Amino acid sequence: MAAVVAATRWWRLLLVLSAGGMGASGAPQPPNILLLLMDDMGWGDLGVYGEPSRETPNLDRMAAEGMLFPNFYSANPLCSPSRAALLTGRLPIRNGFYTTNAHARNAYTPQEIVGGIPDSEQLLPELLKKAGYVSKIVGKWHLGHRPQFHPLKHGFDEWFGSPNCHFGPYDNKARPNIPVYRDWEMVGRYYEEFPINLKTGEANLTQIYLQEALDFIKRQARRHPFFLYWAVDATHAPVYASKPFLGTSQRGRYGDAAREIDDSIGKMLEVLHDLHIADNTFVFFTSDNGAALISAPEQGGSNGPFLCGKQTTFEGGMREPALAWWPGHIAAGQVRTLLGTGRQGPPQPPVRGSRTQADEVPHSCSQGLQDTPFLLFSLQGIDFCPGQNVSGVTTHNLEDHTKLPLIFHLGRDPGERFPLSFASAEYQEALSRITSVVQQHQEALVPGQPQLNVCNWAVMNWAPPGCEKLGKCLTPPESIPKKCLWSH
Amino acid sequence: MAAVVAATRWWRLLLVLSAGGMGASGAPQPPNILLLLMDDMGWGDLGVYGEPSRETPNLDRMAAEGMLFPNFYSANPLCSPSRAALLTGRLPIRNGFYTTNAHARNAYTPQEIVGGIPDSEQLLPELLKKAGYVSKIVGKWHLGHRPQFHPLKHGFDEWFGSPNCHFGPYDNKARPNIPVYRDWEMVGRYYEEFPINLKTGEANLTQIYLQEALDFIKRQARRHPFFLYWAVDATHAPVYASKPFLGTSQRGRYGDAAREIDDSIGKMLEVLHDLHIADNTFVFFTSDNGAALISAPEQGGSNGPFLCGKQTTFEGGMREPALAWWPGHIAAGQVRTLLGTGRQGPPQPPVRGSRTQADEVPHSCSQGLQDTPFLLFSLQGIDFCPGQNVSGVTTHNLEDHTKLPLIFHLGRDPGERFPLSFASAEYQEALSRITSVVQQHQEALVPGQPQLNVCNWAVMNWAPPGCEKLGKCLTPPESIPKKCLWSH
Repeated sequence: MAAVVAATRWWRLLLVLSAGGMGASGAPQPPNILLLLMDDMGWGDLGVYGEPSRETPNLDRMAAEGMLFPNFYSANPLCSPSRAALLTGRLPIRNGFYTTNAHARNAYTPQEIVGGIPDSEQLLPELLKKAGYVSKIVGKWHLGHRPQFHPLKHGFDEWFGSPNCHFGPYDNKARPNIPVYRDWEMVGRYYEEFPINLKTGEANLTQIYLQEALDFIKRQARRHPFFLYWAVDATHAPVYASKPFLGTSQRGRYGDAAREIDDSIGKMLEVLHDLHIADNTFVFFTSDNGAALISAPEQGGSNGPFLCGKQTTFEGGMREPALAWWPGHIAAGQVRTLLGTGRQGPPQPPVRGSRTQADEVPHSCSQGLQDTPFLLFSLQGIDFCPGQNVSGVTTHNLEDHTKLPLIFHLGRDPGERFPLSFASAEYQEALSRITSVVQQHQEALVPGQPQLNVCNWAVMNWAPPGCEKLGKCLTPPESIPKKCLWSH
Repeated sequence: MAAVVAATRWWRLLLVLSAGGMGASGAPQPPNILLLLMDDMGWGDLGVYGEPSRETPNLDRMAAEGMLFPNFYSANPLCSPSRAALLTGRLPIRNGFYTTNAHARNAYTPQEIVGGIPDSEQLLPELLKKAGYVSKIVGKWHLGHRPQFHPLKHGFDEWFGSPNCHFGPYDNKARPNIPVYRDWEMVGRYYEEFPINLKTGEANLTQIYLQEALDFIKRQARRHPFFLYWAVDATHAPVYASKPFLGTSQRGRYGDAAREIDDSIGKMLEVLHDLHIADNTFVFFTSDNGAALISAPEQGGSNGPFLCGKQTTFEGGMREPALAWWPGHIAAGQVRTLLGTGRQGPPQPPVRGSRTQADEVPHSCSQGLQDTPFLLFSLQGIDFCPGQNVSGVTTHNLEDHTKLPLIFHLGRDPGERFPLSFASAEYQEALSRITSVVQQHQEALVPGQPQLNVCNWAVMNWAPPGCEKLGKCLTPPESIPKKCLWSH
C-alpha cells in the first residue's frame, strides 16, 4: 500500500486487495466494481471525517465496515481534469485535460468546449471490457460532449446522465439547456424534462440516479461482472434534493443533498447484501475535488481543517474523502494513514509532508503547469478561501513559487498555515527530496495534446442525438472557434 | 438529553444515565467516576473527530464503545475559569472566576494571583463525599494555590500534581518554580525534581500521572466508590512527552504528547476491565478549552473546522471533544448531535444555531461579561486566529457587539465565516430567542465575588507546605497587592 493514495492510482488498490483473485484460470469471478464519485464534496463532509452534525450514517457505517483513507488525493482541484484522471489513471497533463491558453489557470469542459477525452486514452471500462465486464455510467460524464467523446465510445455500455454541469436554466437561444442522455440519445434537458427548482432546491435527480443504479445492479447481479460508475451531482451548485429530504438537514440545502446521497448509498449497499453479491463487489467512494467554498454556506460543503477548497491546490482543493468497502476482503474498521499503518499500528517516525508526497503522483498546481509539480502558488487563492488568509500563502494574485516553493509539514500543519522556513534544514531536506521527484516526473513526461484550449459556441448541446424524436433540436450559431478564456 | 451539553452540566449526564441507580436504598453501589480533563486539547485532535493522522486509537475506541458529543462546550475558553465551572457546575461569573479589572479580558490563576475557589462553592468531590465517595485529583488544580484553596480543603481526599501551569524554568529569585504536591505537602518543583527539557520536550510527568491514577483505581476498586479527576497537562505549552513517545507522532511534539495521553487512557480503561469494575465506572473525557493556536504548529493542537481557539469565544475556543464511556449503561457507538438524535435517528428540522443554544447554559464572551452572554466580539481575535481572517468577525481590536450581536447558523456554518445578515428574518427570529434567554440569565444572576482581580508577588509559591522537610523554602518579597493586568 502506497503512503498516499492518489486518484490516478486507485485501481492499484483494487488489484492489491483482490490479491490474485482476478484473471487466473479457475479463479473466482472477478469482483464487481461500484465507484461512487461525489461532486464538490469536501473531505470534512462525512461524519467519519469529523463533520459536526454527523448526518451521514450510511457512509459512516461503510467506513466502519471497510477502510478509510485520510490521505487520498484527487489529481486536480477541478471537475473535468479530476474525472479524466480518475478514469484514465493518468495525470491531466498526460491525458490532455489542461490548457496552454493561460498560465496556471483552472480549465474544464463547459458546453462550448471543443475538446474532450482523446481516443488514445484507455479508460477503466475499456480495460474491464477485456476482462468481461459490463459497465454503466450514471450521472455526470464531463469528459467532452461532442459525438466522439460520448461515454459509450470510451468503454461504457450504458449511460444515464448528462455530459456537462447542471447549470442553468438557459433560454435555449443564446445557450441551450444541458441534455440528459439514456445511452446514445438524449431523453430531455435539465430545467425542462428534468426540472431543478432553483428557489426551493427541489429536484428528484438523485432518486432517478439511485433507481438507475439499483436496476443495473439487480440486472447484472447474476450475469457478467459489472462496473458501475455512479457520478451524482446534487452537491454541486445549484445544489438540490428531492422533496422528502429538503429541509431535513441541520446543514441547510447542501446538507439535504448530502443526506439524500448518503441514504442512496445505504440503499445500494443493502441491495448488494440482499442479492448476496456484497462479498464479490468492491465499492469505492470519493469526490472529484474539494468543497466549493465560494458556494458556502448554503450550497457549499466542508473541507474540515484544510486550507481553501475547489479550484486551489491547497489541501482543501485536492484532499478527498475516500472509503473502500468489500466484505470478506477488506477487514472492518481499517484506517490507512500517511504511512500506510492501520489504526492499531506501531508508532511511526514523523514524515515531512509537502504539497506532494514524493513517492506518489506529483500534484501540481494547474493543468498549465502539470510539468512543474510541487510548486505551490495560489490561484487568486483568497477568492476561493473565504475567511482564510495566510500571509504569503493565500494571495490575491497569482504568484510563481517555482524557484522557491512553499513547503508544509502536513503532519503538524495539515491546515497549511506555517510554511517551512526557507533557511531551515528541514526545508532544504524536503526540497531536495521533492526536486528529485520533480526531475523524474519531468524526464518521463509526455504531455498530451491540450484539450481545453478551444471553445466554440456552435458545438454546444443544440441538437444532441435523439433530439429529433423529441422535437427538441435547436439551431446552432455560426461556427467561430476561439481560445477559451480561463480567468480563474 | 439536552440539545447541547455544557461543561457546567456534565453531572446531569451522569444522573440521567445512572437512571436511579444511585442513592436509593438497596440499590447497587453508585458508580465510580473517572473524569479525564485535557489541557488545551482541541475539538479536532482526536481521530474520531477527524484528525487526519488518526493517532488516538484508544480514545477512538472509547468513542466507538461509548457516546460521542460533537456539541459539548466548556464554560470558558481559558483554563482556570473553565475548570472552576467544571467542578462547581456554575458559570465563572457566579463562582468568582472572572475579573472586573478590565473589560472582556481573559483572566486566570498565575502564581501571583491572590484569589481562588471560594469556600462558598460546592465542588463535585464535596457532594460526592456525602454519598460515600473517595476523591483524588491527579495533575493540574488551577483553582488557586494559597492554603485556603488547596484541593483537599475542597472535597478531594488525595492530590498528586501542581497548583499552577508548568511554565518555567524560573530562577527561584524573581519567581519560584511551580511546586508539585502529594496531598498536603510539596514533594518537589518543576524543572528541579520534576524536570521538563524544553529543548527536547522530554518529561516523564504523564507516566507519573498515569501511575498515580492506576494505583488509586486499584486501591479503591474494592472499597468506597471513587471519583478520580485526571487533569494532565502535557498538551499545554511547553508541550512534553516521555522518551518512548518523543518523535513517534506524525504531528510533531504536540502529537507525541497526545499519543502518550491516549496510550495512558487506554491503560486505564484496560485496568477497569481487569478489575471487573468497568460496568460500574462512568468515564468522561473532555478538555478545558480549545487548542492554543498561538502555540501551533509544534506545540498547539487542532480545532478542526472551527474558528480560532483558546482565549476566544469562537467555536474553536469553547467547543470541546467529549466522550462518555460506561459499558452496560451507555450503548456503544452513540453520537449525541445538536438535536440530541442518535446516529440512526430520523431526519430533524434545521436548527438556528448561534453563539449560544438558547435552551442551555448561556455562553458568554469573557469573565468580565458573563452577565452579557451571547454577544460575540473578538478578543484581539486575529492574534489568536493565525491564518483565519473573517471580515467583521475576527478583529484586531475588541469590538462591542452588545447592541447588535453577531449570530451564526452553526449547522450550515460551523466555521463561523458567515454571520447572519442583520436585516434577515432569520437573524431577527434568532435574536428574539436569544434575547429572551439573556434576560432570564440576567434576572437570575447573582455574580460571585471576583477572584481574579488582585495579584501580589508575595503570594507566589515561595514556601509551600512541606518545603522545610525538603529544604526548598524560598523567601517571599514584600507584600504589595495590586490589580492584576489582563491584557489578552
